[in-house]
Amino acid sequence: MKLYDFPPAPNPRRVNIFIAEKNIEIERVLIDFSAGEHRTDEYKAKNPACDVPMLETADGVYISQIRGITRYLEEQFPATPLLGRNAAEKGVVEMWEHLAFINGMLAVAEVFRNTGKGFVGRAVVGPHNYEQSSELASRGAARILNFFQDFNQQLASNEYIAGDHYSMADITTLVTCDFAKWVKADIPEDCAHLRRWYETVSARPAVLSNP
Amino acid sequence: MKLYDFPPAPNPRRVNIFIAEKNIEIERVLIDFSAGEHRTDEYKAKNPACDVPMLETADGVYISQIRGITRYLEEQFPATPLLGRNAAEKGVVEMWEHLAFINGMLAVAEVFRNTGKGFVGRAVVGPHNYEQSSELASRGAARILNFFQDFNQQLASNEYIAGDHYSMADITTLVTCDFAKWVKADIPEDCAHLRRWYETVSARPAVLSNP
Repeated sequence: MKLYDFPPAPNPRRVNIFIAEKNIEIERVLIDFSAGEHRTDEYKAKNPACDVPMLETADGVYISQIRGITRYLEEQFPATPLLGRNAAEKGVVEMWEHLAFINGMLAVAEVFRNTGKGFVGRAVVGPHNYEQSSELASRGAARILNFFQDFNQQLASNEYIAGDHYSMADITTLVTCDFAKWVKADIPEDCAHLRRWYETVSARPAVLSNP
Repeated sequence: MKLYDFPPAPNPRRVNIFIAEKNIEIERVLIDFSAGEHRTDEYKAKNPACDVPMLETADGVYISQIRGITRYLEEQFPATPLLGRNAAEKGVVEMWEHLAFINGMLAVAEVFRNTGKGFVGRAVVGPHNYEQSSELASRGAARILNFFQDFNQQLASNEYIAGDHYSMADITTLVTCDFAKWVKADIPEDCAHLRRWYETVSARPAVLSNP
């Protein structure tokens, strides 16, 4: 089993924390984003979506997208479940992980990819080229603020994002909060619950070992 | 168990086809989108994301987001699996369902919500108000074309989207193709594999009963 990885980027970090929490040993293959190694013909033949991370199973199946990789690993290594322990929890974890992704990660990415000089003409992850949009960058900044408030609200009555148990929803939310710092957005002072939670999850060994 | 539903909209349709494929009996509660019933205080208390569909389990747990609902139902009703039959398939189905969602459904939604008169000031699903963006509408239209080509390519060597087995990835891709018609985009003539697949899956009883 091999993970095609680029540790400095936020999406690989989500999977790396997940793997560390589960204590799985996986060989890494470095795909240097900044050198464009995710867009070579060789890599595209394995992963047409041209993104990182991507998992190659022992049977030679290529699985990209964080949902695909984490689902496969959860099934293969069910100890330390991170996608829920029963049907209702599994549903609720997927719900919150999706909300963290779409309202958090994507909002930060809207700012990052539509303002960064390194992404001129490549504003969307993947093999196709799209121009940057200043309208989308502005909207992303507004969405980040709502994301902080909404998740603070959820943590007002829950220890973790999806309830009383640490899960993949926490990992995506934590990585979003750190990714937001790249675009100069930080958890607001008035989000006390989110700040309390952030301190707790940031201190986990799996998070500390994947900064 | 109750499904808060609005059958004319594409996201509820994804779940309704999934439920029909699995032959599950579920009571429906109509939430009329066009009358704003998804934004009332009563509904928001159950679903802060203010979207439809949403599932209320027999134990009174509220699960929103299609990933949450389908995962819960797959665990509770494992017959006729639609999210994969083994670890590798489960990973691959999640991968393709995610790609269909982010590169297909979201691309069509970018056009639909940023051009429709009914969405002025409400360009993003959820409780918050965002203005429409003509830049995003244009980008969405370009992304739809790439979505058709990429999925046609995948179907050149696969019977179904995630391989040789019909799955939730097919449901999301099919609903995306039909949703695209709402913004005057249709599968191009040169996408023969996608057209062959579209004819096959459109004829399934679960699809015909959820037009």
